[in-house]
Amino acid sequence: MPAQAIAVDVGGTEMKAALVAVGPDRAEPLRWLRRPTPRGEDTARLVVDAVAGLVAELRVDAQVDAAGVVVPGAVDEARGIGVYSANLGWSDAPLRDMLAERIDLPVSLGHDVRAGGLAEARLGAARGMRDVVVLPIGTGIAAALLFDGQLYAGGGFAGEIGHVDIGHGEPCGCGRTGCVEALASSAAVARRYLARTGAERTSAEVAAAVRAGDPDAQAVWAEAVDALAKGLLVLVTVAAPECIVLGGGFAQAGALLTEPLRERLDAMLAAYHRRPHLELAELGDTAGCLGAALLATEGLRTK
Amino acid sequence: MPAQAIAVDVGGTEMKAALVAVGPDRAEPLRWLRRPTPRGEDTARLVVDAVAGLVAELRVDAQVDAAGVVVPGAVDEARGIGVYSANLGWSDAPLRDMLAERIDLPVSLGHDVRAGGLAEARLGAARGMRDVVVLPIGTGIAAALLFDGQLYAGGGFAGEIGHVDIGHGEPCGCGRTGCVEALASSAAVARRYLARTGAERTSAEVAAAVRAGDPDAQAVWAEAVDALAKGLLVLVTVAAPECIVLGGGFAQAGALLTEPLRERLDAMLAAYHRRPHLELAELGDTAGCLGAALLATEGLRTK
Repeated sequence: MPAQAIAVDVGGTEMKAALVAVGPDRAEPLRWLRRPTPRGEDTARLVVDAVAGLVAELRVDAQVDAAGVVVPGAVDEARGIGVYSANLGWSDAPLRDMLAERIDLPVSLGHDVRAGGLAEARLGAARGMRDVVVLPIGTGIAAALLFDGQLYAGGGFAGEIGHVDIGHGEPCGCGRTGCVEALASSAAVARRYLARTGAERTSAEVAAAVRAGDPDAQAVWAEAVDALAKGLLVLVTVAAPECIVLGGGFAQAGALLTEPLRERLDAMLAAYHRRPHLELAELGDTAGCLGAALLATEGLRTK
Repeated sequence: MPAQAIAVDVGGTEMKAALVAVGPDRAEPLRWLRRPTPRGEDTARLVVDAVAGLVAELRVDAQVDAAGVVVPGAVDEARGIGVYSANLGWSDAPLRDMLAERIDLPVSLGHDVRAGGLAEARLGAARGMRDVVVLPIGTGIAAALLFDGQLYAGGGFAGEIGHVDIGHGEPCGCGRTGCVEALASSAAVARRYLARTGAERTSAEVAAAVRAGDPDAQAVWAEAVDALAKGLLVLVTVAAPECIVLGGGFAQAGALLTEPLRERLDAMLAAYHRRPHLELAELGDTAGCLGAALLATEGLRTK
């Protein structure tokens, strides 16, 4: 019989919550709730209150074993602390203890991107594989890493592949130069297309223009693919994943991204590199919540 | 009461074997044997025979629980296979099964560098830390990685930090350009000093010349330190270790290497980087054998 968990993914604008049935290789959401993320003087306290409300609502008429809550920013899962979130305005917030005071269930605290990566690795595009990198590409790029089937957080710092210097010399928002995400992110593609043409386009619109044969769009896209391939090569060289999963808004471009990327990466691999599968994420914006449910029930198994 | 293991480190020219008492945080060699590594038509068979002989000899009058054998080249620990060794001339050799046929003990097969890294992490320079990179620098550079206290092999491919492109443009023996080890290894320092001055010196002699104020040696050394710092920065960005341990012949330079390296690395770290301890290896050429003993007894615990 599967465990049942309540999972909450706290985003910058919206909280997604679900009652999830979790088995060894599956996680099935039974019902969903969505609410705006509260803001105020003490956002940590307001978020904890709101999460407790969602859990109480989803718990009605259900047998629930555990709760999992994932949040953005820097998170120390081992200590249960929201280390920092620019967006939600907390620093060193003891979220797990705050949640445990309000929720009469075992509570796990996780990081939204790593939890989403865990879900893609167990249930989504990389299921069945043990050494996995999941790379959501949006405004920036940071990877979730799974080694031997286990999430690795590196104290919350691991996987900052967006800030590896690949030598292109362009400035990055982080204050350094040459970073992967200065060329290869939704924000970078939009910004570079604007700089080149004077036209404001989203990265999805730039992708459409690539398909329509716009040479400026094609040039910006080719630079993004090249930068991303060099970033993936660094991941392959250091971490040797079996599978790299691309997600986030930028990966909506689908084969327009993966086909040239696979070709470019393959051309750079040497005999000392493990050759990874390259896949598109499958779970979309439910990944974080499903990952929270997995974290909640893994917590049970280790107790 | 500690377990007792027989550990054998099969090198390209010499085999080191020891009877080792292994407790939770210690591994004490009780007696050592050294033999030349045999060569011939079927080196895998000859090595297995020689290892079996060493084990039999060390086992006399001892209560032994397990044996651990580590070999160079590419190793698949999970399947117990010596995938490839240019030096010892085997490919896809089922060494663990071959050893188990000859040795009436539970046998573990490991990789020499990863086993040495495990020993430095558990017993040596990084003891007490869980996220550790151990970097032996000799002719080349490949890292042993420990995440959450466990060795990570990535199918035998992980940690090839010597072949990350850091943008210097110089050719590497691997056929690519810009690799860390093309500037920052014992072989690279000797080769670059020779190219610059026409004088044949070992990397240890170049280090002595740096101390004596030789400007050519200082220039070669500074380039090596810069390249290594850039390689470590990539490791920090992707893998976020708590501790980086430098070993191998090149690290014999001690503070001449670590002091400028620490300064150069610190200057490149940003807020999104974990700040690692930088340490010199403590176990010297016994690390592989001690790591083999740890692998042997960890095998026991998981059975």
